Amino acid sequence: MVILGIDPGLANTGWGVVEERRGEVRCRAYGCIQTSSGSDLAVRLRHIADDLTAVVERYRPQEAAVEGVYFGANVRSAIPTAHARGAALVAISLCGVEVGEYTPMQIKQAVVGTGAADKGQVMYMVRNLLHLDHDPRPDHAADALACAICHANQRRTAALSGWSYVEKRGNGYS
Amino acid sequence: MVILGIDPGLANTGWGVVEERRGEVRCRAYGCIQTSSGSDLAVRLRHIADDLTAVVERYRPQEAAVEGVYFGANVRSAIPTAHARGAALVAISLCGVEVGEYTPMQIKQAVVGTGAADKGQVMYMVRNLLHLDHDPRPDHAADALACAICHANQRRTAALSGWSYVEKRGNGYS
Repeated sequence: MVILGIDPGLANTGWGVVEERRGEVRCRAYGCIQTSSGSDLAVRLRHIADDLTAVVERYRPQEAAVEGVYFGANVRSAIPTAHARGAALVAISLCGVEVGEYTPMQIKQAVVGTGAADKGQVMYMVRNLLHLDHDPRPDHAADALACAICHANQRRTAALSGWSYVEKRGNGYS
Repeated sequence: MVILGIDPGLANTGWGVVEERRGEVRCRAYGCIQTSSGSDLAVRLRHIADDLTAVVERYRPQEAAVEGVYFGANVRSAIPTAHARGAALVAISLCGVEVGEYTPMQIKQAVVGTGAADKGQVMYMVRNLLHLDHDPRPDHAADALACAICHANQRRTAALSGWSYVEKRGNGYS
């Protein structure tokens, strides 16, 4: 099972592809899509959508997982992230890949064991869980890999318990 | 010149197509794309993208204009709108149509003459400016038509003054 994880952002959208086989999760590839603040919003979003489409075409993930928008501290900064997230979800959906969504807290919980983990701890655990001999940089790529690992864990737990691993209906927005 | 105006929203995305000929703006069509809060976010965004693509294919606008996200009063409600806006911008961009962006204040200023106009005033002026014999409903469709009228006005003003009517570079997001 190949899983694409995405950490959406207008300036930096991290992505990471992992493969789960016999309960072990391995890294296939990761990267970061960067857009210039000097470009139009539509151009930047198109850039993100095009590059994610290319990633899907290259690595053929069966499922994808996207990190949710966090707007606890600075709501204003959540708006461009939500724009990028909308663009990413449409791009992945147009490729015919189903997308799960996870909150930053769920992802940290899955990778580090606590929802209060910092970026350094996430990086350390992603590197170790995927048996990498280097830190996956930048942070956005590590976060995307963490999101994919979280999705793989959810699938495994669901398979063991017989539960549905992704809440298929409803998204909390009216 | 055929112009598509869009008022993005996750539950309701208004759209309106106007045609400008010899300084007169006429209504071609309008509508509202509704998505169910019981569906996944990715499914809802794909629905918006697919329906806007169908509108572009049917009415062949040369240019498009999208209303900006307003987050003065309730920032939390701006997040789903930003998701929808990202989806709309990617869909329009994938159709090869350039998109201008206007703030709600710019649109009200263009249609009513004051940025503090209420929904009823916008509806009244959209109906009159487009010589419609009925109110364009719902409000989302009227707002989308207002956005298209605003873009037509900007084009006309720019043509008269020799200015570029859309700021092509930069979008205020870092």
